[in-house]
Amino acid sequence: MTRISKYLLVVAFLIAATFAPGVFAAKAPNIVIILADDLGYGDLGCYGHPSIRTPNLDRMAAEGIRFTDFYVAANVCTPSRAGLMTGRWPIRSGMAGSTNDVLRVFSMGGLPTNEITIAAALKSKGYATACIGKWHLGHELQFLPTHHGFDYFYGLRFSNDMEPVRGKIPKNASSSLHPKLEWWNSALLQNDKILEQPTDLSTLTRRYTEEAIKFIHQNKKQPFFLYFPHTFPHVPLFASDAFKEHSARGLYGDVVEELDWSVGQVLNTLRKEGLAENTLVFFTSDNGPWLIRDLAGGSAGPLKDGKGSTWEGGMREPAIAWWPGKIKPAINHELVCSLDLFTTSLCLAGVALPPDRVIDGLDMRPMLFGTGHSQRQLMFYYKKNELYAVRKGSFKAHLITHTGYSKDAPEKHDSPLLFQLENDPGERFDVAAENPEVVADILREVEEFNKSIVSVQAQY
Amino acid sequence: MTRISKYLLVVAFLIAATFAPGVFAAKAPNIVIILADDLGYGDLGCYGHPSIRTPNLDRMAAEGIRFTDFYVAANVCTPSRAGLMTGRWPIRSGMAGSTNDVLRVFSMGGLPTNEITIAAALKSKGYATACIGKWHLGHELQFLPTHHGFDYFYGLRFSNDMEPVRGKIPKNASSSLHPKLEWWNSALLQNDKILEQPTDLSTLTRRYTEEAIKFIHQNKKQPFFLYFPHTFPHVPLFASDAFKEHSARGLYGDVVEELDWSVGQVLNTLRKEGLAENTLVFFTSDNGPWLIRDLAGGSAGPLKDGKGSTWEGGMREPAIAWWPGKIKPAINHELVCSLDLFTTSLCLAGVALPPDRVIDGLDMRPMLFGTGHSQRQLMFYYKKNELYAVRKGSFKAHLITHTGYSKDAPEKHDSPLLFQLENDPGERFDVAAENPEVVADILREVEEFNKSIVSVQAQY
Repeated sequence: MTRISKYLLVVAFLIAATFAPGVFAAKAPNIVIILADDLGYGDLGCYGHPSIRTPNLDRMAAEGIRFTDFYVAANVCTPSRAGLMTGRWPIRSGMAGSTNDVLRVFSMGGLPTNEITIAAALKSKGYATACIGKWHLGHELQFLPTHHGFDYFYGLRFSNDMEPVRGKIPKNASSSLHPKLEWWNSALLQNDKILEQPTDLSTLTRRYTEEAIKFIHQNKKQPFFLYFPHTFPHVPLFASDAFKEHSARGLYGDVVEELDWSVGQVLNTLRKEGLAENTLVFFTSDNGPWLIRDLAGGSAGPLKDGKGSTWEGGMREPAIAWWPGKIKPAINHELVCSLDLFTTSLCLAGVALPPDRVIDGLDMRPMLFGTGHSQRQLMFYYKKNELYAVRKGSFKAHLITHTGYSKDAPEKHDSPLLFQLENDPGERFDVAAENPEVVADILREVEEFNKSIVSVQAQY
Repeated sequence: MTRISKYLLVVAFLIAATFAPGVFAAKAPNIVIILADDLGYGDLGCYGHPSIRTPNLDRMAAEGIRFTDFYVAANVCTPSRAGLMTGRWPIRSGMAGSTNDVLRVFSMGGLPTNEITIAAALKSKGYATACIGKWHLGHELQFLPTHHGFDYFYGLRFSNDMEPVRGKIPKNASSSLHPKLEWWNSALLQNDKILEQPTDLSTLTRRYTEEAIKFIHQNKKQPFFLYFPHTFPHVPLFASDAFKEHSARGLYGDVVEELDWSVGQVLNTLRKEGLAENTLVFFTSDNGPWLIRDLAGGSAGPLKDGKGSTWEGGMREPAIAWWPGKIKPAINHELVCSLDLFTTSLCLAGVALPPDRVIDGLDMRPMLFGTGHSQRQLMFYYKKNELYAVRKGSFKAHLITHTGYSKDAPEKHDSPLLFQLENDPGERFDVAAENPEVVADILREVEEFNKSIVSVQAQY
């Protein structure tokens, strides 16, 4: 090697060391969680919907892992989000109500300030963090995202049907009143400040998406955590002009197809910025479809019931994990829960799990990277603060059953119903009589689990 | 160019002309139709089934066109197959029964000998033809496949539950009696001769597959038509040893996963023989899932009802078209019917449509090759020989409704029910009152269609 070429090599090394530290120490991976609101198990093309077109999510699924047995932590918005953000069953944080199922406009509580969100945990490792979309974990100042570990918040404090101007919301508000925006008085916040009220809900998905892309651009040189909980397809439904009458499935389809577009925008941004190979993107929904909203609600596909229910349709969700080069394409049938996103995110970022509390989430990394399996054996189905059902392996025992938003009283089963979910995903055939040892085993698990539950202040 | 190189060019040309006629005149394409029996709309991975694993069909769908709105010609075996084979609504050929819905063991009739099957039509252009699997278009000698245009037949004459040895078939025969083969006395035919009776049903899918592969190998140098109608997942269910307890979905899943394996074997053979780029492979089922068979029956996913019904679950089927290099990957939402396979096959082979009869099938080629759309506007839903419902565009009017195998009388609707299927695939919301002009238009279509129906001898 000549003297000049040696010199050039040293210069090149110094330049590389200065401007591309990633060459020498792998940058911690970015994490993006995209959450739909009230999207059903059967609402995407890749989950078998006959008429809704979701090419971006279908492609994401084809390039990543599509889960068939992914559950959320609760069957309605608030507790589901509390579980996702903290990795703890909502009952542990007071986020499982007794009379109310979610935080209402009049609720003074929220996610307790001593709870640790994914964002708060990741900040300790220098992550830039943003929540873009619907929060619904408390609207008093101390509970807002910017007080729970997020550098930036752009979105609604709660559901888009929670601030109607003219009293009671008509059942089919979303279809018959569209586009009468004046019914709704949602406030759009930026950090702790109201930016717009009433919010133009029809441009919200587009504006959220622009904010998400801006956040990615601004933070491409440092690890980031983007939590992107969409407002839709929760009613009232609104789509931007580009997506109105876009779908054969009517306004509900328009809204889902705009969400699909949004996912495509995020993935394309990551690809273009060269970040895709260092970013885990996870897509799911907060709970099942709101069936009582008729055509303004979604479809649970082959599953029973929807939002508000502890039948499968209420809590089993479409879920896709995407990370080019790290995650290999697959359909995954293992038992997974949204709580596991907390633990997995912390593990990916190299953050130790909080030692002072019960963490229910499990590390999904071996399963995601094809080196192992889901460690999850148990799934607990709560309705408000009561345990209604438990899945262990492929069996699910129902202690109490209740149709989503039925006015009938819940039915308590002294002898639990039992379904084998892999054989009978629609929960049609009770097999308790043939499997007494399975029922007994699940009841033992319930007893064990209940020992770990400590009474805390309810937040609703 | 030198004299020697000119000479070499001529030699090369002569060799090419002798051994590779395909270079100069494209060989007519091969056509393979694979038909499952009683498989439901929701039973494949790519149509959203949560636990049945169908990697070969999923891959076929990812490489080809997956249809969301593909219909069969009838809601039970015999008339559905008659429609597929002739391109004519079964009512035209006497293949729509009045009391019986399918040909029974005691039936003396069959597909009339003057009907023209795809096989008979393609033979006129030198196609090798085989029917491997279940026929069910007449078991008297003159109605067998070998008398209807097929060079070769290997399979059962009718359904696998039609020759029980001990009288009435128990409802859950398929699960509780498996593997008690002695209940069933099916005859396996090769051409016109009984090869085996009782047939070992557990090895049937494997043996059909071996026969199909052998037929492809033997005919790789000439155009061929392979009609491959599987016996399963019609009850009683049997899987070969390699697939017993293969599936989380129990025996039904085992059987479907073995079918999936079989499809993979056929496609792999075509790939290995270099035939894939000159072969259309079409996969579908004869009718919806047999829901009254409980766990031995399949799932219609988000659709209503199943086999025997004119609700969507009875007649809308999984359908995949595959032809590497010719068909581009897509999800297709257009209205298509199994009748169209007749017309499309004849067009691909360069055979003129029979001029002496009504052909209801339409040419799918423009849609398959991405140069146009489905020409189909209308779908007629018969139950036996009565017209129950009609789809035009995205609207479906029900003149009569009846749950699949219910003992209740069918319900006649003086004023038809109307559903918008793209918006409401589950047929939940009757929109007749809001769309009187659509109902009137469909009733006019019915009147027009009925003029084309000529009374013929019923075959059942």
